[in-house]
Amino acid sequence: MTALLYILDLSGVAVFAITGALAVRHKKLDLFGVVVVAMVTAIGGGTLRDVLLGRTPVFWVKDAAYLLVAGSAAVVTVVFVRFISFPRRALLIADALGLGLFTVLGTDIALSANVHPAIAAAMGVMSGTAGGVIRDLLANEIPLILRKEIYAIASLCGAVAYIILLQANAGAQLAALAGAAITFVLRVAAIRWRWSFPVF
Amino acid sequence: MTALLYILDLSGVAVFAITGALAVRHKKLDLFGVVVVAMVTAIGGGTLRDVLLGRTPVFWVKDAAYLLVAGSAAVVTVVFVRFISFPRRALLIADALGLGLFTVLGTDIALSANVHPAIAAAMGVMSGTAGGVIRDLLANEIPLILRKEIYAIASLCGAVAYIILLQANAGAQLAALAGAAITFVLRVAAIRWRWSFPVF
Amino acid sequence: MTALLYILDLSGVAVFAITGALAVRHKKLDLFGVVVVAMVTAIGGGTLRDVLLGRTPVFWVKDAAYLLVAGSAAVVTVVFVRFISFPRRALLIADALGLGLFTVLGTDIALSANVHPAIAAAMGVMSGTAGGVIRDLLANEIPLILRKEIYAIASLCGAVAYIILLQANAGAQLAALAGAAITFVLRVAAIRWRWSFPVF
Repeated sequence: MTALLYILDLSGVAVFAITGALAVRHKKLDLFGVVVVAMVTAIGGGTLRDVLLGRTPVFWVKDAAYLLVAGSAAVVTVVFVRFISFPRRALLIADALGLGLFTVLGTDIALSANVHPAIAAAMGVMSGTAGGVIRDLLANEIPLILRKEIYAIASLCGAVAYIILLQANAGAQLAALAGAAITFVLRVAAIRWRWSFPVF
Repeated sequence: MTALLYILDLSGVAVFAITGALAVRHKKLDLFGVVVVAMVTAIGGGTLRDVLLGRTPVFWVKDAAYLLVAGSAAVVTVVFVRFISFPRRALLIADALGLGLFTVLGTDIALSANVHPAIAAAMGVMSGTAGGVIRDLLANEIPLILRKEIYAIASLCGAVAYIILLQANAGAQLAALAGAAITFVLRVAAIRWRWSFPVF
Repeated sequence: MTALLYILDLSGVAVFAITGALAVRHKKLDLFGVVVVAMVTAIGGGTLRDVLLGRTPVFWVKDAAYLLVAGSAAVVTVVFVRFISFPRRALLIADALGLGLFTVLGTDIALSANVHPAIAAAMGVMSGTAGGVIRDLLANEIPLILRKEIYAIASLCGAVAYIILLQANAGAQLAALAGAAITFVLRVAAIRWRWSFPVF
């Protein structure tokens, strides 16, 4: 992985840890619990992907930087949330960027393992969203993305676009940028105009 | 695996996806959430079995047909549930058949991995039941099979019968048929006469 | 593993199964559900550790004694809880001993897999605590250790002490004893003086 991609990846982990900590701050968790839930939010999706693909030890066991970044971001959030107000809008945008990044990275890792394109897309979505699902389970709630948010669908569209562009020989960089951008734009648009799926 | 067994396996996945979708239809999930939960119900048990045995990538990553069948069955269920009423009794019987099938298949896969017979039985039960457990966790409920249903016990009896018959040299086909039949009959009888375990 | 360590390990599994069964006895589970939840409590932490490290098949699949001991302890608890009262204090102390043991064992297994010390500490904590987290999820509650108990922190301190002593060449036996003792003492002190973390 290039240095830029590695830094982006760690930044995504930090953003997901921050949003994870903020998402559960009104639950009845103690400080330790919030930090654990934030870390699980940040690394849970990639962990599930690695376990299902058989890429073990999972990514954060191989490279301790992920766990340390997630833990540090969570602790900093917990400490400073009393003193400063986190800019909600900026966080939502950073979270959407993280979703786009993790989707493309996860899809790419699955494709490298020579799985069927449909499975690779599922793995991309899982990489971006499963952390939030586990977070909600730990907080004893029905996962948000299964209830009302356009989140996983934005990720799915980006993953599919990435795969189609790769197969159309659009070049790895263009495909990755387009996939991440599509996920990002759909997610931000869904927040902006409150898109949601009908309830079953 | 023979062609017949493969078709049976995919049919079991479809049935579990349909019953999974119907089981959560009154929860506050959106359409996307119902489809995801239905897919998890269908493939969750075999996934857990494969992960614990170290058979990775897990079965549906190796063969995309499982995910596509589960997804299609879930989408069709979600689309048509408004227009047609699913025959409840037929679904319960199909579900019991699926339980018998997954139990024997799961036990057989574990035995092929040379584990202790007690572990193989546990793996068979897990293959048949863990998907429903994850479904209930996602819907924020105490899993049904831990509360009141004779479901896992029917699976356990079938798995044990299968192993005993195999060890008594009854022949693989007879053992498999008997194991699946025992699970099926116990499950249907439990529904018919409302058998349940005492609450602790 | 020496014979003594093996017996200690199985004893820890039995203790966790007993406390697991007692922890969910007022939930609406049937007898089967209580036994399953108790077994998951006993072997869940080590299972997660093994899966994340890629040590598959997981420990209890390789050696059926773990599952049989956990199941037997759970069944005995369920049967006898009506007739005898379990000594609450003795159980809390046995549970704290189990936590110390599983912490050091889990950390040691991770170190043997050549992971970063910070990851090894996380694996030690997970070995000791993840079973209880899954137990609470199955009982549809926010995990106790994320809400108010000094439990995982006691485990973390023991794991860190064990690693530091090993790196300071204190000898494997002394390091293990000290790590387990620190976890045990912190946990018992937390119960005795009702230490808890501030809620976020």
